[in-house]
Amino acid sequence: MAFSERVSRLKSSLIREILAAAQCPEVMSFAGGLPAESMLPKVEWADMPVALGQYGMSEGEPALREALAADARALGIDCDARQVMVVSGSQQTLDLAAKLYIDKGTEILLEAPTYLAALQIFQLFGADCITVPLQAEGPDLLAMRQRLEQHKPAFAYLIPTFQNPSAVRYSQASRDAVAALFDEFGVTLIEDEPYRELSFDGGSARPIVSGLKTASWIYTGTVSKTLLPGLRVGYLIASPDLFPHLLRLKQSADLHTNRLGQWQALQWIGTEHYREHLVTLCEFYRGRRDAFESALQTHFSDLATWNSPQGGLFFWLTLKQPLDTRTLLDTALAHDVAFMPGEPFFADPDANHGHLRLNFSHIDPARLDEGIKRLASVVRAAHLLQAA
Amino acid sequence: MAFSERVSRLKSSLIREILAAAQCPEVMSFAGGLPAESMLPKVEWADMPVALGQYGMSEGEPALREALAADARALGIDCDARQVMVVSGSQQTLDLAAKLYIDKGTEILLEAPTYLAALQIFQLFGADCITVPLQAEGPDLLAMRQRLEQHKPAFAYLIPTFQNPSAVRYSQASRDAVAALFDEFGVTLIEDEPYRELSFDGGSARPIVSGLKTASWIYTGTVSKTLLPGLRVGYLIASPDLFPHLLRLKQSADLHTNRLGQWQALQWIGTEHYREHLVTLCEFYRGRRDAFESALQTHFSDLATWNSPQGGLFFWLTLKQPLDTRTLLDTALAHDVAFMPGEPFFADPDANHGHLRLNFSHIDPARLDEGIKRLASVVRAAHLLQAA
Repeated sequence: MAFSERVSRLKSSLIREILAAAQCPEVMSFAGGLPAESMLPKVEWADMPVALGQYGMSEGEPALREALAADARALGIDCDARQVMVVSGSQQTLDLAAKLYIDKGTEILLEAPTYLAALQIFQLFGADCITVPLQAEGPDLLAMRQRLEQHKPAFAYLIPTFQNPSAVRYSQASRDAVAALFDEFGVTLIEDEPYRELSFDGGSARPIVSGLKTASWIYTGTVSKTLLPGLRVGYLIASPDLFPHLLRLKQSADLHTNRLGQWQALQWIGTEHYREHLVTLCEFYRGRRDAFESALQTHFSDLATWNSPQGGLFFWLTLKQPLDTRTLLDTALAHDVAFMPGEPFFADPDANHGHLRLNFSHIDPARLDEGIKRLASVVRAAHLLQAA
Repeated sequence: MAFSERVSRLKSSLIREILAAAQCPEVMSFAGGLPAESMLPKVEWADMPVALGQYGMSEGEPALREALAADARALGIDCDARQVMVVSGSQQTLDLAAKLYIDKGTEILLEAPTYLAALQIFQLFGADCITVPLQAEGPDLLAMRQRLEQHKPAFAYLIPTFQNPSAVRYSQASRDAVAALFDEFGVTLIEDEPYRELSFDGGSARPIVSGLKTASWIYTGTVSKTLLPGLRVGYLIASPDLFPHLLRLKQSADLHTNRLGQWQALQWIGTEHYREHLVTLCEFYRGRRDAFESALQTHFSDLATWNSPQGGLFFWLTLKQPLDTRTLLDTALAHDVAFMPGEPFFADPDANHGHLRLNFSHIDPARLDEGIKRLASVVRAAHLLQAA
């Protein structure tokens, strides 16, 4: 069997197995990153034009590109609709970026931890991952400068707002400092913001790309966390030097993004009813976050530390007594509890034991306490085993 | 600017420019491969379950996979639903196959001519293209055997039913011979059948993959030519050894295909109203084919030869006096006529002058004769210029 060399880097199916196990109705799952079903808005299709059944443009629907550009400008990103491309979920932005930049051995700069599926596709294409540790307010800036002095990464990939998995939100000062560094060293920034709108304290900070003066950039977002992930509609906005290449890569990947989802997204983006929906959604998830944190305080306060997430969908726990959390999985699943081990979110999993990512958006509130309690028992049992 | 090495192989935007020019309402376009708008079926969305807004499975919707597997078994393909993956248009199958197989310098076997966008993505990944000439009833079998004796291609990519661009349909004997060759040499087959249902003479022939005994295979199809391309729903069916790898590549490309389009496709696949729609569609396109052929006979019979297509969407003309048809484009567009030059459909364009691909499905019948007449004039003028 003569597969490509890159296929040897296709990661094991651990994550798929966790998510598959989490689908069983009896399993209490903190593993995925699903929106709550009850908060999926009811959408109307009756007015969709028949002509949308025809092939469309690789760039996306013109009216949607205009609406997305207007939203981005309101965030401080200097752009127009010609720089906007609709993609088949923001995961596709990562695929296009990998194709645009990564050969075997290409260095890229990542946060540690970072988004698992980004790590997987960048490594699939052969990237060498240079990492900068995340702190409460953003990346370790001294470490970042050191990395940039020692390496010449093809791009930096950052998730500065309610990061998956760590929930970290960069402060404005941190954003400004990062933008200045990338301008200084001429590093292209890929800024991934799927969680920007899911803010629980009303706080916000400008996208880092809006502070860049000379560096190239790709900004990417999605309607999957706020509207309907099943639409598979995301977008990227790129500096003009990158856009034509990304467009040709998009065309060769899938011709264009489905037009039904694009039409539906257009019914929401930039409208008053979308703003109202977002307010309701953030209130709802803040409630879930609070309930989750209570359950954690009850069952995990002797076992782990965490920062209360001000947005997004995840708690990121750090065990007081580190252990390889992947070894907890089988026992947890045997007790009908699923969670995401922290190790796979690091380019070097074996050097980063002792974190758990717990999703708070999707769990049935009636089973929350029981689930967290069981998970705490699994951790306690492992500690006893370690001590024995 | 440090892009990946593959980006240097991103092809020029000639095709995009032709298709963009063809969008102007005053242009009579034979360039694209669009279904006729009047034949896009009216679809209903009222009954779509709200739950489809949630994330779905990378494999696709279970019920749709079952329906597609049943259809494939009816064609003679020995498979079950576990081998079926829904993709974001069959273009995505080519992207996944490229990732699975192609490193820089990997040899692959293609028909000459072949589908332009396949050639582009395979070359983007760095493939060395070994080609076999197409004849009226299928590939040159002696040439194919020779290539397989001299090379070890990672896969063969074939479009045996109403090929784009040549409209060739392999005979059953040719299919059997090709299957036997691939078993003999252990060559993986990627069989692309977007046009299978668009048959004008009621004739058909079994998929080549149904005749394979030992070779690995991927069979791919789409609803884009028979239902609605805007849904962006295609599928692949793969031998069990390949499926797990393709699934992980699909997940890293875009998580899963949009569920709206999948739901809509399921309302049609395998139903009586779909069969009725296909009958109407084939009758309609047969009418367009006949009208197109009359216009060609009037204006092109001294200039070119062609086989009357028994299905699909294209006429493939061979000029009696060959010339580089790319040089005709500017003049044609200046006369508000768009067509697709034949050269880009060959791995070696400069060795394959003198073909034109003309789409007959989308042109307004009222403008057909005028368009063909103008195109003939452009060819005649170029011949005069050549002679001068």
